[in-house]
Amino acid sequence: MDFDSDREFARRLDQQDPLAAFRQRFVIPDPDLIYLDGNSLGRPCRASLERLERLGGEWSRDLIRGYNKDWWHAPGRVGDRIGQLIGASPGQVVACDTVSINLFKLAQAALSLLPGRNKIVTDTLNFPSDLYILQGLGRLLGDQHTIVRVGSKDGDITPDLDALEAAIDQSTVLVTLSHVTFKSGYLYDMAAITELAHRRGALVLWDLSHSAGAVPVALDECQVDFAVGCTYKYLNGGPGSPAFLYVRRDLQEKIVSPIWGWWAQKDPFAFDLDYSPAPGISRFLTGSQSALAMLTMEAALEPLLEAGMEAIRTKSLLLSDYLIYLTDVFLAPLGFRLGTPRIGEQRGSHVSIRHSDGYRINRALIEEMNVIPDFREPDNLRLGLAPLYTSFGEVWQGIDRIRRVVEEKRYEKYPQEKLTVT
Amino acid sequence: MDFDSDREFARRLDQQDPLAAFRQRFVIPDPDLIYLDGNSLGRPCRASLERLERLGGEWSRDLIRGYNKDWWHAPGRVGDRIGQLIGASPGQVVACDTVSINLFKLAQAALSLLPGRNKIVTDTLNFPSDLYILQGLGRLLGDQHTIVRVGSKDGDITPDLDALEAAIDQSTVLVTLSHVTFKSGYLYDMAAITELAHRRGALVLWDLSHSAGAVPVALDECQVDFAVGCTYKYLNGGPGSPAFLYVRRDLQEKIVSPIWGWWAQKDPFAFDLDYSPAPGISRFLTGSQSALAMLTMEAALEPLLEAGMEAIRTKSLLLSDYLIYLTDVFLAPLGFRLGTPRIGEQRGSHVSIRHSDGYRINRALIEEMNVIPDFREPDNLRLGLAPLYTSFGEVWQGIDRIRRVVEEKRYEKYPQEKLTVT
Repeated sequence: MDFDSDREFARRLDQQDPLAAFRQRFVIPDPDLIYLDGNSLGRPCRASLERLERLGGEWSRDLIRGYNKDWWHAPGRVGDRIGQLIGASPGQVVACDTVSINLFKLAQAALSLLPGRNKIVTDTLNFPSDLYILQGLGRLLGDQHTIVRVGSKDGDITPDLDALEAAIDQSTVLVTLSHVTFKSGYLYDMAAITELAHRRGALVLWDLSHSAGAVPVALDECQVDFAVGCTYKYLNGGPGSPAFLYVRRDLQEKIVSPIWGWWAQKDPFAFDLDYSPAPGISRFLTGSQSALAMLTMEAALEPLLEAGMEAIRTKSLLLSDYLIYLTDVFLAPLGFRLGTPRIGEQRGSHVSIRHSDGYRINRALIEEMNVIPDFREPDNLRLGLAPLYTSFGEVWQGIDRIRRVVEEKRYEKYPQEKLTVT
Repeated sequence: MDFDSDREFARRLDQQDPLAAFRQRFVIPDPDLIYLDGNSLGRPCRASLERLERLGGEWSRDLIRGYNKDWWHAPGRVGDRIGQLIGASPGQVVACDTVSINLFKLAQAALSLLPGRNKIVTDTLNFPSDLYILQGLGRLLGDQHTIVRVGSKDGDITPDLDALEAAIDQSTVLVTLSHVTFKSGYLYDMAAITELAHRRGALVLWDLSHSAGAVPVALDECQVDFAVGCTYKYLNGGPGSPAFLYVRRDLQEKIVSPIWGWWAQKDPFAFDLDYSPAPGISRFLTGSQSALAMLTMEAALEPLLEAGMEAIRTKSLLLSDYLIYLTDVFLAPLGFRLGTPRIGEQRGSHVSIRHSDGYRINRALIEEMNVIPDFREPDNLRLGLAPLYTSFGEVWQGIDRIRRVVEEKRYEKYPQEKLTVT
């Protein structure tokens, strides 16, 4: 599309947006706030807050009986609904625990499947949190595995795919990557990497934290082995809402979780003193999940399922193309450069723009301009675009306010030293 | 106290109850419902539901900024408040994850401290879920450890303390028990068992799920090494609310969690690719916790802290003494026998009463009598007494309705086959 940098053009894009009405499904108390951090924590949809409101009453009235209504089966039921958004047929996804714990469970299970192989392949663009889990697991298993972190190119924007291909060999047990990398927003070709790994006999585990709800994912079609992801980003599940995990059906009975949970027991109410794994995907559960968190998150899936991932992707790409265009026009002259692939196919739903004063610019935006991006080391302003509630007008205004912060040198009063969460 | 079986006597006990006013702090929509399952899921207090109501607005308005307000530090802050209820000074408790996951983390850490020892001692009265975690951990570590389950006496009511003492020897690395056992409600002497284990060079890990908020616990004073517990029972945190864990201060820097989480990283926002454990208790965190679940639970601690554990224990014992008295008078003639120690010092805050038709009686109570106890195999009706909202009048009515179910043979129409959660 031929874009125009005039604000009127943003209005036209919003008028023509087939998903525009979804914004009204979200609770947006301050319409002036330009929220570009839905990739860290999504906005609440009305359905979630309505569900949350009812939950207090249900807890009061139903008490323990709530488990007979919809709490007990929630991990599987919600998992199946998430499955619809990530191309997984029912019985392969459960919602539970945190991404880190789910990665720990599935990575260990993967390693147990191929005891003769000892190389784990990942990359330097992966979430550090995922790398930590792999490191801890390696230590726990007696340092028998080598963790190879493939490097990146283009200033940490894209992975070194040649190096990745070379790293995956006959000794590789597991390839585990973020489908969309957290900093640059690079989108891996899931089909190609999965196929490559399988050809060399390795298993694949994808972290979908930045792709679920943002880009179409086809786990079944790509024959992915394992996946994990969070629900508080583009799935809008709420702060710290439960994570999910996927295990391909034919692998489920071959493995168990290293954390033998009561919810993963064949007949939990028999209170048998010895563990027997439940059939199917339930064997990867552990203990009780917060019903408040789980059901609030479940309600957030409705608008996404209704809109459909193809329409979401179409708008996401238009939003990010437009944002990149405006960055070229307004911000490149001010010292910004793109920290995300220019090619749409290689992009998730956030765009990083880099500036040597990125950290201070980020602070000025939050404290003076009513814009919330986030900052990632060393110089990335990360701008998240959530197609169901981010409008083209917001993108225009967001870029415009960034321009003003730099032109007016408003960031200069902030110290270079990083504030940590206090 | 000399009890009387007349209903009027229950009224007098309620009138004299110094904690009676706390019942009004809880949301009780159906005053006729006799809820005797607060040891499975506590009732919500008003402060929790008010906090829950505000959380929707905070998520909407604060969005990611909520982490700079009270979300990021919640695990430690809430942990310290729980610490006040279990005798732990600040910096030793965090609220996070589930009991199973926390047990996994701490049991592994404990085993790593004494690599020359290979026996884990527990008992058959422990939560099966705890036994499963130990079994899974043992398997993960290559079956190097022996898990000894000490048996019980008096028809599974009390542990075999002689056998326990004999089992703890120079090869024992860890003694892990439920402080209050889930079925019979037996209360271990924490000081004595911890001292015994320490004398033989072993570490101790207590599961406080049935004691936190129900009986006074003195972790620091008893020099306990590790503890875990849930918050959805007597802490009234809500269905599946976050669990907690305790690591004694001087042990913290000697160990790490097997699950190397981002929240346990020294400087998480540096996004370093290699893990370095955070100082102190934070190193036992993993990933993001649900803020909805965590802060709702935090609010539930208020009434408990205000009442104080000594007053709670005094009322708890009076409630259970009274319940046992009424059972002797009304239910023993109908075939019930006590499944809980008669000696108050050996009891937590629930009483099990046993009957060969226990399962069907439980169903009839729920479906016809507006009483909610719960049932535990093979014949236990488990009656939980939550001192802040369980009244003496409720105990009288609960026993009276049980009497009627049996006298009127109302239970006979229910099948013997167990219903599982559907």
